[in-house]
Amino acid sequence: MLVKRDAGIKMKRIKVELGKNSYDIVLNQGGLAHVGEELNKLVKGKQVLIVTDENVAKFYLAPLKQSLELAGYKVEEQVIPAGEKSKNPSTYLELIDILGNLKFLRDDTVVALGGGVVGDLAGFVAATYMRGINLVQVPTSLLAMIDSSIGGKVGVDLPYGKNLLGAFYQPKLVFIDVDTLSTLPENEWNNGLGEGLKYALLDGGRLFDIMNDQSVKANLQEFVELCADYKARIVEKDEKESDLRRLLNLGHTLGHAIEKKSNYELPHGEAVKYGLKLILQASGRLNGNINLDNEITLINKYDANIPYDVEELVSLITNDKKAESDSINAVFVKSAGNCYIKKLSFEEFKKLF
Amino acid sequence: MLVKRDAGIKMKRIKVELGKNSYDIVLNQGGLAHVGEELNKLVKGKQVLIVTDENVAKFYLAPLKQSLELAGYKVEEQVIPAGEKSKNPSTYLELIDILGNLKFLRDDTVVALGGGVVGDLAGFVAATYMRGINLVQVPTSLLAMIDSSIGGKVGVDLPYGKNLLGAFYQPKLVFIDVDTLSTLPENEWNNGLGEGLKYALLDGGRLFDIMNDQSVKANLQEFVELCADYKARIVEKDEKESDLRRLLNLGHTLGHAIEKKSNYELPHGEAVKYGLKLILQASGRLNGNINLDNEITLINKYDANIPYDVEELVSLITNDKKAESDSINAVFVKSAGNCYIKKLSFEEFKKLF
Repeated sequence: MLVKRDAGIKMKRIKVELGKNSYDIVLNQGGLAHVGEELNKLVKGKQVLIVTDENVAKFYLAPLKQSLELAGYKVEEQVIPAGEKSKNPSTYLELIDILGNLKFLRDDTVVALGGGVVGDLAGFVAATYMRGINLVQVPTSLLAMIDSSIGGKVGVDLPYGKNLLGAFYQPKLVFIDVDTLSTLPENEWNNGLGEGLKYALLDGGRLFDIMNDQSVKANLQEFVELCADYKARIVEKDEKESDLRRLLNLGHTLGHAIEKKSNYELPHGEAVKYGLKLILQASGRLNGNINLDNEITLINKYDANIPYDVEELVSLITNDKKAESDSINAVFVKSAGNCYIKKLSFEEFKKLF
Repeated sequence: MLVKRDAGIKMKRIKVELGKNSYDIVLNQGGLAHVGEELNKLVKGKQVLIVTDENVAKFYLAPLKQSLELAGYKVEEQVIPAGEKSKNPSTYLELIDILGNLKFLRDDTVVALGGGVVGDLAGFVAATYMRGINLVQVPTSLLAMIDSSIGGKVGVDLPYGKNLLGAFYQPKLVFIDVDTLSTLPENEWNNGLGEGLKYALLDGGRLFDIMNDQSVKANLQEFVELCADYKARIVEKDEKESDLRRLLNLGHTLGHAIEKKSNYELPHGEAVKYGLKLILQASGRLNGNINLDNEITLINKYDANIPYDVEELVSLITNDKKAESDSINAVFVKSAGNCYIKKLSFEEFKKLF
């Protein structure tokens, strides 16, 4: 056997309550070999397609496949090139074609093994084949564990913009083995930490302390659990991003502009980190110069020297929004743990930077 | 003006209650010019893409476009070839591409003007562009008015089967002007009547009487209204076809086999009509030879001489289901107005025919 199934491994369960669409986030260290038995509790169909990328396949495809086969599944795999470029409509249709060719049925399952790209792409495949078949997310990047694998946003990019084709579709299970982070490249690690800083500011409690005073790596399972739980609680209240869920966009208004400005060469989480710093500075001004030094100090601990001209970024945002609206809904900070959504006119928004 | 907006036109409203996804079916005779003002009540975005086919465009594209433009919308159109072949993944992506190119935003709208093919295709486009934008169904075939435009099933065909790629996605509005049926070809009319017979058997009341003793054409708005209302009441209780909604598959177990046997040359509604006759005969046997003569007489009034060998059809069904199950859930009839779902083993099912 490639991976030992250890009966002693603790499975932490975070429930995401969404009525008929409810599911568990199962969190553990070293439990990858247990995916098969978890799946047995949830689905009837006996066919599984694992979608993964070439980087992740090297380490985790074989053990995952074995776990599923031992649990009685007929397992097929599709390994895609690593990177955002795979998140496109033609790769999407190729995967759909594979399911059709294998005669997958409504009770069968797609397992997304990898980071955000794999999760979004395979998730959209599962969301639309036969109007939706079972989806299991097995995130292997920090960003996917704490953010993209939870909440049901799936899709692919179009030439006109990121995530322009997609759906809201909840998985049957999110299975997080934090030990899979041991092989994560440094740049992907930083990518996740950027998004982690968002949770630290939203939460203000233990997550802030871990990121400010301690090591994320030394508290890894707890860190992932707290972030995942934070997101789950928000998604429960607002599945389709009509209201509260917009809080999760803290740092993203400027973050998206920074990504765009970098021609999407800067990783998402890094862009969010810069976005957080800028919105903290703006939040201070918006609230009559309140003191957000502690919060800004936290961000600076993670190297946040913004490589772009701020005025230019702000223009980019207002130009983008013009077609849609004459105002901007952005998330601001009163203090760590106390964030809020505020609508500003373009003029008011510009003045803050 | 191409079409007069007549303040005297009566708009009958059927509410489909689905929580946040609720919408109205607006029914009228000659009210096509009022689509624009109905849309004004519902959506904020000012861009509309009308998707229609070449047959329908000839009659109704210009007046619909004018109605929308008069209501303040910027209207684009895409005319696709008529027929099932247009319901494919590449036409789907072409339409998505048009929306991206035109910079459609979340509050903008896709209007499906036509029969089931247009509604399913354009519906899937609206369901997945930006994870879902506004969708308005303007059905112009009898089948689409009484069945496919209501209930949120959208999608396209794959080489492996019909409707294999799709979603459940509710429109913001279904706008039915029964006067558009005046240009419906005879074969399309019969196609709709086949599905109408299903409602007549499910309902057993006024719908049965109209189809049995009277003329559908002479009672057109009432007929469409009763069918649409019947479907709306079922969809409300079971949006995603987990249970009750399967009643709407009356006649479809054999109907689908007949369609397949005909290489999809026989229209769907015609196949359903034959399927209804066969399931009525089987229902009689299943219930200790109850008398379903009135029900069978109704079907026969619509020319129901089945052009296929029944045993062969039944084998086709059991072979298809084998991969999935060892039994069949089919809808049977006790009497018009009293239908039920029953699970049978393959052997039990075969014996009935």
